[in-house]
Amino acid sequence: MQGDRNKILVDSIKRLLRRGAISHLLNIVNKTHAADLSAVFPSLSLSDQHRLFEMIKDTEQKGVLFSELEEDIFLNFVEGMDLDEIVKILERMPADDVADLIGRLPDEMSDTILEKMKKEGSEEVEGLLRYDDDTAGGIMVPDFIALKEDTTAKEAIESLQKEHQDVEMPFYLYVVDEYGKLTGVSSLRQLVVVPPEKPLKDFMTMDVFSVQTDMDQEEVAKIVARYDILAVPVLDETNRLVGIVTVDDVIDIFRQEATEDILKMAGVGEEFVETKSVLKSTRIRLPWLFASCIGGMIAFFIISHFEESLIRYAYLAAFIPVIMGMGGNIGTQSSTIVVRGLATGRINTRDIWTVVLKELAVGCILGLVYGFLIAAVAQIQYGTAAFAISVGLAVISSMAVAALVGSLVPMAFAKINIDPAVATGPFVTTAIDVISVSFYFIIATALLGI
Amino acid sequence: MQGDRNKILVDSIKRLLRRGAISHLLNIVNKTHAADLSAVFPSLSLSDQHRLFEMIKDTEQKGVLFSELEEDIFLNFVEGMDLDEIVKILERMPADDVADLIGRLPDEMSDTILEKMKKEGSEEVEGLLRYDDDTAGGIMVPDFIALKEDTTAKEAIESLQKEHQDVEMPFYLYVVDEYGKLTGVSSLRQLVVVPPEKPLKDFMTMDVFSVQTDMDQEEVAKIVARYDILAVPVLDETNRLVGIVTVDDVIDIFRQEATEDILKMAGVGEEFVETKSVLKSTRIRLPWLFASCIGGMIAFFIISHFEESLIRYAYLAAFIPVIMGMGGNIGTQSSTIVVRGLATGRINTRDIWTVVLKELAVGCILGLVYGFLIAAVAQIQYGTAAFAISVGLAVISSMAVAALVGSLVPMAFAKINIDPAVATGPFVTTAIDVISVSFYFIIATALLGI
Repeated sequence: MQGDRNKILVDSIKRLLRRGAISHLLNIVNKTHAADLSAVFPSLSLSDQHRLFEMIKDTEQKGVLFSELEEDIFLNFVEGMDLDEIVKILERMPADDVADLIGRLPDEMSDTILEKMKKEGSEEVEGLLRYDDDTAGGIMVPDFIALKEDTTAKEAIESLQKEHQDVEMPFYLYVVDEYGKLTGVSSLRQLVVVPPEKPLKDFMTMDVFSVQTDMDQEEVAKIVARYDILAVPVLDETNRLVGIVTVDDVIDIFRQEATEDILKMAGVGEEFVETKSVLKSTRIRLPWLFASCIGGMIAFFIISHFEESLIRYAYLAAFIPVIMGMGGNIGTQSSTIVVRGLATGRINTRDIWTVVLKELAVGCILGLVYGFLIAAVAQIQYGTAAFAISVGLAVISSMAVAALVGSLVPMAFAKINIDPAVATGPFVTTAIDVISVSFYFIIATALLGI
Repeated sequence: MQGDRNKILVDSIKRLLRRGAISHLLNIVNKTHAADLSAVFPSLSLSDQHRLFEMIKDTEQKGVLFSELEEDIFLNFVEGMDLDEIVKILERMPADDVADLIGRLPDEMSDTILEKMKKEGSEEVEGLLRYDDDTAGGIMVPDFIALKEDTTAKEAIESLQKEHQDVEMPFYLYVVDEYGKLTGVSSLRQLVVVPPEKPLKDFMTMDVFSVQTDMDQEEVAKIVARYDILAVPVLDETNRLVGIVTVDDVIDIFRQEATEDILKMAGVGEEFVETKSVLKSTRIRLPWLFASCIGGMIAFFIISHFEESLIRYAYLAAFIPVIMGMGGNIGTQSSTIVVRGLATGRINTRDIWTVVLKELAVGCILGLVYGFLIAAVAQIQYGTAAFAISVGLAVISSMAVAALVGSLVPMAFAKINIDPAVATGPFVTTAIDVISVSFYFIIATALLGI
């Protein structure tokens, strides 16, 4: 449905642009949410993009559009733009979004823009740029409501009426002491239900969830999700309140992290690869396939080592695919369960041996089932018991080892703080291919007495 | 960090339970968020779970704990519980969470509970149970603030003080006409900044995003994420406001859908498989591996068909793994990019041919690169040009076809509204295995003139 609506929007905008129906366009552009307009941009030429952009009357909507555009399109779009115009738009945007956009621009351009921006705004943005992109400090907004403990409910409401108009998430009111340290939290809801003269310290919640500026964004997101809160306060090294991370950013983090994990496991390893050109996509995917190529070459050298066996028992070759396939697929199952379990917090690295032994047990059972099945096929086809047993044993050992390797590798990587998703995909698959083929030929050679 | 904190909590609770240190336990249990307590439950015996649960003083916290427990543990836990006690807890929970829990219980038990619940509450829950679990109606909460258009800001604040105490998300105030149809929205924030006598219709936003009860939950989640809103109103067939979907549920939906996609692609296909027993995990994974087994068997019959060629050229077998591996890996890349692109909305089913042709182009280029590389190795090893060319051509065609199949299959499935993630994983991989092996032997047999 979303797709259909987008298509209708793209089609009408293109038609109106062709016809030069300015008043119609003005109407559509200013009635459509910038998040929807951003979806139209990839289908337009650069000059049409600019024509459409200039029709947006509200500077704030221009800012929303900026943050919604994909990186490539945004960079292309602003290249030809007047810097003062860009500055005017950025000044109306939340500081965290500005920091995001500025981080994407060439250094020279971003320096000039920061210089041109009003002092207050640029200081906020520079403050944010100090933190790593993937930490609480890098994603927080520095706009929040912080009030002193003895402020009354009435005064708090008055302060909302006078200032704090640009605060993104005015639902929590944070309470700080004289040094700016966080001591409690209250909500807009509480303000309107307590007697007006009551000071914040008498009704605030003292038990506040908070995070440090250097906490990884995924951890921050997990805390917000776990406790069903709309924003979490961010504290610096001295426990001063310096920003908040809001729930809309948390959603983006989860979606982005899930996409990254999925793509890394499949050996693509970069977000937005689906919108890249053929050549760029090729360049991103080429190195990941190299692991698989090296693995294939190793398997080739192992097999050619057994050429004698192959000449005497040509049908040995016929079972290579099923042994590799069964090992590869159960290995993928194990590593995917572990990687996703780690990401959702349902598997913990301290349980490494419990998890790995369980996977090994599953691998052995499934290996026995499919080992018997495939051995039976071999026996029926060739009637050589020694050969059927070799095939069966190869399936069992390959599946057991694949489940072991598939779970152990990501668990071990996570334990030493390396992203487990990277460890999976081509690397684990390739290792399993090599191991399966080796086992097969070693077992067959031994049992067939070659 | 989260993990460490959990471990400390589990360890201290276990220690205190052993020692029977009731006052310590009471202290910990009532100071710990129910979401954290739920993480302790899997490590405890059923009787210890009940001991801990009885120590929770706040009935509402017991409810939070109920919703946080994993399905298996929850079902086990409530089995021995007094129904009246369960009813008492459910009555204090948001209706959407109650509907979720009741949906998990055996029919007989859930009927009795619904009968025992206070009329108002059970009607709300039964209302929700009418809708599909995965639709807006199934995940919405029926508690929201709806006011008439001529209510003044002051009256609205007063109504917040008197009623609506149990509303989960009191940040949006929905405005309805005399028939309960949604006409606008205002926020708590606006209420406190406008003059008290102003009626809602004078400052409400008329342009409200809303969804219908039967909209798929993933679509609903996308809308909330797209427009950065905290809740979206849900309308029935007659456009009456019947509930809202809140942002915390949206986070859960995204995480759940991402996990489901990942597991389906890996051929596991069920959430929470990581917390299941060895036997259950085996049973879930067994059928998915069957696809791979069948594929391996087909490859076996194809290869045995070429036994003559293998007897004359034993080294043909040595390149089976690399050809299958390269095809399999690029196929996984393509299908993963497509499945994830469809899930995030960056790929649309109406662009099916653009996407598939692009993947085919990438497959051809990467096929040429690796085809040359692997052919060179074959040439160096065996010095037979015809053989090296066969290997190279097999790599190229296998990779090109794999990229084509890997993108076309999920796109086509999505087009006819079948979950593309299911189509990927073992099925696509298996198809590619069979195709790769066939191409290899057909090309080699032709070129080597066997």
